[in-house]
Amino acid sequence: MTVLDKLFKGELAALARIISYIENRDEGYRRLLSRLYPRSGKALKIGFTGPPGAGKSSLVNCVAKKLLADGKQVGIIAVDPTSPFTGGALLGDRVRMSDLPTDGSVYVRSMATRGSRGGLAAATGNVTVALDAFGFDYILIETVGVGQVELDIIDTCDTVVVILVPESGDAIQALKAGLMEIADIFAINKADRPGAKNIIAALQNMLEIKREQSEWKWPVIPTEAINNKNIDELLAGILAHVECTRKSGRFERHRREQIRKKIFNILESQLNALLHDRLVDVSDLEKIVSDIYSGKSDPYTASEELFKLAPMK
Amino acid sequence: MTVLDKLFKGELAALARIISYIENRDEGYRRLLSRLYPRSGKALKIGFTGPPGAGKSSLVNCVAKKLLADGKQVGIIAVDPTSPFTGGALLGDRVRMSDLPTDGSVYVRSMATRGSRGGLAAATGNVTVALDAFGFDYILIETVGVGQVELDIIDTCDTVVVILVPESGDAIQALKAGLMEIADIFAINKADRPGAKNIIAALQNMLEIKREQSEWKWPVIPTEAINNKNIDELLAGILAHVECTRKSGRFERHRREQIRKKIFNILESQLNALLHDRLVDVSDLEKIVSDIYSGKSDPYTASEELFKLAPMK
Repeated sequence: MTVLDKLFKGELAALARIISYIENRDEGYRRLLSRLYPRSGKALKIGFTGPPGAGKSSLVNCVAKKLLADGKQVGIIAVDPTSPFTGGALLGDRVRMSDLPTDGSVYVRSMATRGSRGGLAAATGNVTVALDAFGFDYILIETVGVGQVELDIIDTCDTVVVILVPESGDAIQALKAGLMEIADIFAINKADRPGAKNIIAALQNMLEIKREQSEWKWPVIPTEAINNKNIDELLAGILAHVECTRKSGRFERHRREQIRKKIFNILESQLNALLHDRLVDVSDLEKIVSDIYSGKSDPYTASEELFKLAPMK
Repeated sequence: MTVLDKLFKGELAALARIISYIENRDEGYRRLLSRLYPRSGKALKIGFTGPPGAGKSSLVNCVAKKLLADGKQVGIIAVDPTSPFTGGALLGDRVRMSDLPTDGSVYVRSMATRGSRGGLAAATGNVTVALDAFGFDYILIETVGVGQVELDIIDTCDTVVVILVPESGDAIQALKAGLMEIADIFAINKADRPGAKNIIAALQNMLEIKREQSEWKWPVIPTEAINNKNIDELLAGILAHVECTRKSGRFERHRREQIRKKIFNILESQLNALLHDRLVDVSDLEKIVSDIYSGKSDPYTASEELFKLAPMK
């Protein structure tokens, strides 16, 4: 029996091995993904993002337990795109997740860049395919809110929860810049702390116009992960979002858009690998580099010439 | 007189305008870069990275003032790749820099992703070309240590200073993963705090083997930016690194490697734009997406087919 058969039979050890193949891009990982893909598509993928210290792990933990109590199977991917300096914090978060059951109804996977460049977003999307094909009903993806990698990962999700805390009052200004576009639901965690009312009021205010123009009303839900408070409301909000987008057709449109992006990303990385190979073969590349180094040419002009010569026109 | 002529004449306002063109990729920005490039190459580019709260801005400030006192002209690029949540902190840092002189001998530019995707690293490299062509002797690039974007920006520099504080004791473990490779100099800032001796000893220990195998000895320099302490030593370390790499030929090899990467990156982005245009033209793309959405196909198989059909072979 192949490891893939074992995965389809529900063996967690086989799932773990296949995820490692996918993460490491071991030989044949794309063929594996081709086999997994047709069995995927049923899981709901929920993203959780927010600043460090907002209690993301705790909140994801609470939501997972609620889903498990409802008889659902839950996969969790914890992504930490922050590299070298915060290696410690990652482990700290994972320890907190250890009170989840070990009966196979939940599976937690951590992914971190640890200084490596790129590829994390693509790998995360591929790992969700494996979890999805395995049969999890929900895949919860937790990511620290730092720039590009995080936004790419959010592209994998059906619904995105942005978690803020009363202390992130200043973030409201910044929210306008980028997060408003990716958030479907706001959770204000540690809502017992001073300032909670202020940040909720500020958010409600910001959402007014958006709500007028849309069927979806962007709920702002105060939570206290540490006291397991309002988790029902948060989960209800998530399910309401899925239902609303399913009805409006946005759910399908969004998933089709994700497929288009996935195709583009695969072609892009194949093409770039090809470009890399071809560029190494350009016989006078070192002469071109010398001309640029000495100021006789520049990378922009040289690239135009190279692009004309390149075999992938 | 064109804005480019004004820049070459030393007008800061022209520099600021051209940097904006470059940042926004306004029409013709590549031709601008082609014109700027041959005048660049003289500035030394020094990168400063470290965890939030390490005092990067203060230390960069101190180094800049020391250089200015020596009669040098200094450009500073402050990059904040952390997006939505930390918009506030960015401004805080910039305020601290306001005690620099306003006589034109120093120019500070902040760059932030603010939720936008990609392109920051490329833009930063292009902005250094403008500062370099303007005539600054030193370009100091400050970046928060978070993952990919930061590593890419570091590729722009000749010398990299990694700033740690006694509180980052845990970071030593993580350092092994990625930062050891990019650091040329370690500054232990806030060195008057407890734990400074420990982190310095741990670093010295880690560096032992590296030092044996190399001419460069990776200095570990305790600093106190707030008291302007040991800045001379830090600057001396930077200059020693430049001298050492110039002698060994590494300086030139490194800059040539940066040129190779730059060419590759330009071609890559042109190729990806072309790919995007062509993919939109694939007449049965929506049918392919539908097949994938319904589980009849998968993105990996579909991409293989598309790659065969694509005109950019």
